[in-house]
Amino acid sequence: MRSHPAGTLRAEHAGQSVTLAGWVARRRDHGGVIFIDLRDASGSAQVVFREGEMAERAHRLRAEFCVQVTGEVVRRPAGNENPDLATGEIEITATALTVLSESAPLPFPLDEHSDANEEIRLKHRYLDLRRSGPAAALRLRSEANRIARTVLHQRDFVEVETPTLTRSTPEGARDFLVPARLRPGSWYALPQSPQLFKQLLMVAGAERYYQIARCYRDEDFRADRQPEFTQLDIEMSFVEQDDVIELGEEIVAALWSELAGYEIPRPIPRLTYAEAMARYGSDKPDLRFGVELTDLTEYFADTAFRVFQAAYVGAVVMPGGASQPRKQLDAWQEWAKQRGARGLAYVLVDDDGTVSDRGPVVKNLSEAEREGLPKAVGASPGDAIFFAAGHPSDARDLLGAARGEVARRCGLVDESAWSFVWVVDAPMFERIRDDKGNELGWTAVHHPFTSPNPDWVDRFEEAPGEALAYAYDIVCNGNEIGGGSIRIHRSDVQQRVFALLGMDEAEQREKFGFLLDAFAYGPPPHGGIAFGWDRTCMLLAGGDSIRDVIAFPKTGGGYDPLTAAPAPITAEQRKEAGVDAVPPPAPPAASPAADEPPTKL
Amino acid sequence: MRSHPAGTLRAEHAGQSVTLAGWVARRRDHGGVIFIDLRDASGSAQVVFREGEMAERAHRLRAEFCVQVTGEVVRRPAGNENPDLATGEIEITATALTVLSESAPLPFPLDEHSDANEEIRLKHRYLDLRRSGPAAALRLRSEANRIARTVLHQRDFVEVETPTLTRSTPEGARDFLVPARLRPGSWYALPQSPQLFKQLLMVAGAERYYQIARCYRDEDFRADRQPEFTQLDIEMSFVEQDDVIELGEEIVAALWSELAGYEIPRPIPRLTYAEAMARYGSDKPDLRFGVELTDLTEYFADTAFRVFQAAYVGAVVMPGGASQPRKQLDAWQEWAKQRGARGLAYVLVDDDGTVSDRGPVVKNLSEAEREGLPKAVGASPGDAIFFAAGHPSDARDLLGAARGEVARRCGLVDESAWSFVWVVDAPMFERIRDDKGNELGWTAVHHPFTSPNPDWVDRFEEAPGEALAYAYDIVCNGNEIGGGSIRIHRSDVQQRVFALLGMDEAEQREKFGFLLDAFAYGPPPHGGIAFGWDRTCMLLAGGDSIRDVIAFPKTGGGYDPLTAAPAPITAEQRKEAGVDAVPPPAPPAASPAADEPPTKL
Repeated sequence: MRSHPAGTLRAEHAGQSVTLAGWVARRRDHGGVIFIDLRDASGSAQVVFREGEMAERAHRLRAEFCVQVTGEVVRRPAGNENPDLATGEIEITATALTVLSESAPLPFPLDEHSDANEEIRLKHRYLDLRRSGPAAALRLRSEANRIARTVLHQRDFVEVETPTLTRSTPEGARDFLVPARLRPGSWYALPQSPQLFKQLLMVAGAERYYQIARCYRDEDFRADRQPEFTQLDIEMSFVEQDDVIELGEEIVAALWSELAGYEIPRPIPRLTYAEAMARYGSDKPDLRFGVELTDLTEYFADTAFRVFQAAYVGAVVMPGGASQPRKQLDAWQEWAKQRGARGLAYVLVDDDGTVSDRGPVVKNLSEAEREGLPKAVGASPGDAIFFAAGHPSDARDLLGAARGEVARRCGLVDESAWSFVWVVDAPMFERIRDDKGNELGWTAVHHPFTSPNPDWVDRFEEAPGEALAYAYDIVCNGNEIGGGSIRIHRSDVQQRVFALLGMDEAEQREKFGFLLDAFAYGPPPHGGIAFGWDRTCMLLAGGDSIRDVIAFPKTGGGYDPLTAAPAPITAEQRKEAGVDAVPPPAPPAASPAADEPPTKL
Repeated sequence: MRSHPAGTLRAEHAGQSVTLAGWVARRRDHGGVIFIDLRDASGSAQVVFREGEMAERAHRLRAEFCVQVTGEVVRRPAGNENPDLATGEIEITATALTVLSESAPLPFPLDEHSDANEEIRLKHRYLDLRRSGPAAALRLRSEANRIARTVLHQRDFVEVETPTLTRSTPEGARDFLVPARLRPGSWYALPQSPQLFKQLLMVAGAERYYQIARCYRDEDFRADRQPEFTQLDIEMSFVEQDDVIELGEEIVAALWSELAGYEIPRPIPRLTYAEAMARYGSDKPDLRFGVELTDLTEYFADTAFRVFQAAYVGAVVMPGGASQPRKQLDAWQEWAKQRGARGLAYVLVDDDGTVSDRGPVVKNLSEAEREGLPKAVGASPGDAIFFAAGHPSDARDLLGAARGEVARRCGLVDESAWSFVWVVDAPMFERIRDDKGNELGWTAVHHPFTSPNPDWVDRFEEAPGEALAYAYDIVCNGNEIGGGSIRIHRSDVQQRVFALLGMDEAEQREKFGFLLDAFAYGPPPHGGIAFGWDRTCMLLAGGDSIRDVIAFPKTGGGYDPLTAAPAPITAEQRKEAGVDAVPPPAPPAASPAADEPPTKL
């Protein structure tokens, strides 16, 4: 239907007869002569309808009509070239026009910088995607897939599809569930990740696996969460942490080199989890700027100020922050409260370098505490010092957030910069605390299949809060874009981790019996990594939201404005699906394998 | 953990010290010297434990222990080479052995030709996949993905992921359903294919889309059906049927060339649907053998035999079939009855070329009918002639199956041959008939988005049973491996097709309103194809079942013997999922877009 993609025409095509097909991006009438920008996936070109009859027929063209045009490529008259357009040296003098389909008036203009409400754009996503930005984001994502696969194929990785109708293992996030019509009362679960299947593939001897895998988590959707999301999922056998990190860097380096024109300096630096928390108050620190935390716990060891008599006291400095009016300093308190803190204590440094009398904190400090403070936190004249005190993880979390907010408000973030860092040596476990701060059991910081490092593998029960995992996360500009670990491959270790997490043997068997069984047959040491593919592509595309790199995203509540999914089902569908059937007595008994003994409980 | 993959060692490595990691495939003791075949993903190599201490430590090795071995590569003594093994010229003299993990006794032997029951193999799929055949099938599938993507990337196709939590449109097969916790009483559906989304991408101007997509159909599983399956899904804008067929051939040719070593003669021949049905009694004819159908409706136009006074009478010839004993001829009747037919009428041709008196049919034929029969059907002395009479589609279906059965029993199928054919010009619609054969409404032969061809687009209502579609299926050795069509892109045509299928306007709006809306905004002409990827890979792998090319397949009832999915859920999960909530009043009213008018009904 076309001889050339419109965006590929150049001066060298002058004199050729061409047939183009695409959309009317713009139409302009100049005294009986009609110009249109004809847009297709390759770009756009200017078409001129000069002759009386052609101009007349082109008169009915409107924005987004789909057309086929035949004509001659001619050089534009000198002075009429458009250097901003790849096809700006030529235009097409139309000799034939076919309207392939018409367009109703648009619900929103398809400009580059549309300010149409997102819900309207997503309802008409097929129009939104005709804009060059959204269209380019999808092409970039396709390229990212190709680049990652190229690295992996060169290294003999095998792409394997794992099941998405799987067994529910209520663990971590909530599962999406699917009623199984052929076993009424039983349900499949959509996988939160291919984790268990990729580990089984390692037991199967696959050695190098990858998959760009759809994953599902039924969470209370925050703004930028999707109920279904994608990860580049990788697993390898006979490897150490450094092997996986090296591969991860290779993939990230190839992506940024080809798609962002940025050569990542390698090796990518590593921070321990402890250092990241201490210096940046975050396990995914943004290193495009400084503004580090200062630990003042020692400094205030003997303080009389009750608020600072805490397990941890720390501070961040806001350059020039002392000049903020009272209203703005109050706004910081509001900001902190919205994050669940009581407030954000502050002290201001006067222009002479001494601590100001302003603010509610300073009067609680001793003379010595007051005098030494600017030096202790590295504050300059005119700076503000923000404090947090309390449980170390809560206080650091608040300071980490304050650090980011300070950097944004002070313009310290170089938006064109890229910063990459690995965060390693994460703890295995963290305490579950109830609303009142009472310590309950333990939960896994990564997931329960992560291996303790060799120092801890035989004794993590002695001090679960201190035990370190063989885990590594890669962070880009403050976003965790990938994470992984060396896995447990010994069933005794796996069972000890399950036990520490509060699972008794029966529960272990019921939920993960198949994994423990698999580990009985010569499991290889293995580890892997998964990249959050939506987020990775979003960063590469320079987007603000993962919705930018998803063809048909859902809005906050998991709603699709385009198809109006989810929707009620018919009574017949409900009946057929077996939703209301009484489930069979116990899961293992549901096995159809008459010749197989039931799984031991 | 290893210096070389075991399967890559050759004579040129002799003298080198290597470290291998893998599994003990076989262990043999020869007078204190222990030999093992060490297997990893690359192949296997022989390791010898010669020294006293090494041999002693190797003594505990058992099948499928996971080990790390360091040693020296040495050439095997002359005469001890194994030419069947890529590493057969060398062996490794072990100097260090680490047992990475032990293996319990295996539930079934991991021989190449294991006759273990499939359910046991799937329950321990992580062991089954250590066998070279199943492992190779997964690698082949990974390569098939790579080859197809290479063709598509060379042609500027964009890979796009489409949603899998979508709207239920009860059409064709049953949807799998997913309760939406955040909209209690509403449900998502898992997609039967990305059909509507890929068409929306064409409206969006994507022009060339592909995806290796997971699809879901809740059907009553026949032996070789999976509840989730994969298709290579492709859609293009501004194309005709020939463009899509050409691309499809390019993909198939690349796959068979690289993975089966077979150069497909191109262009691949085309049969019309009518011709395929008339000559082969099938819309997916296996052309590796002849045994064509003969239409005898005219021949028996004036017959006195009541059974042959039918809308259609046809026959297939079984070479040498006249020598079948009575018992075998009776077995054919049973065979036909199992397919839902009343039986399979037959006539035998004696060695002298005349029709035999044997069998129940011949006495009902006139002398002329009897005499002319061998010539009319092309039967030779000693052949059997099988008949079917009745409704043309039923009768041809039976003869088509008989044709395949004849070819198998007579050894006419060359199992090493490849036959490819396109079946084109399929009908748009076929009658729905009830159990008694009463004609009800119409159903779409492909799907309701398939375009009528230009002859029929404006008048398919005049003779729906005769209207032809712009559809094409590609058939390999009697298996439909792909199918597609030029789509409807005019909303008036789409609405007429929906209407013919019995959908009133309200139902059209409710189910497909978003598609009809999209067609209001300059939709391009478009078409595409989808390959059944499991089946395609199965044929390439030389397998008998699609389960051979699926890492973790389900058995007949949609059951996963490995994880015992599906399984009952907890009362809390059920409550949280909102399964029992009362749905909101009507689907369009469920829209959260307060600033948007509800979809028109």
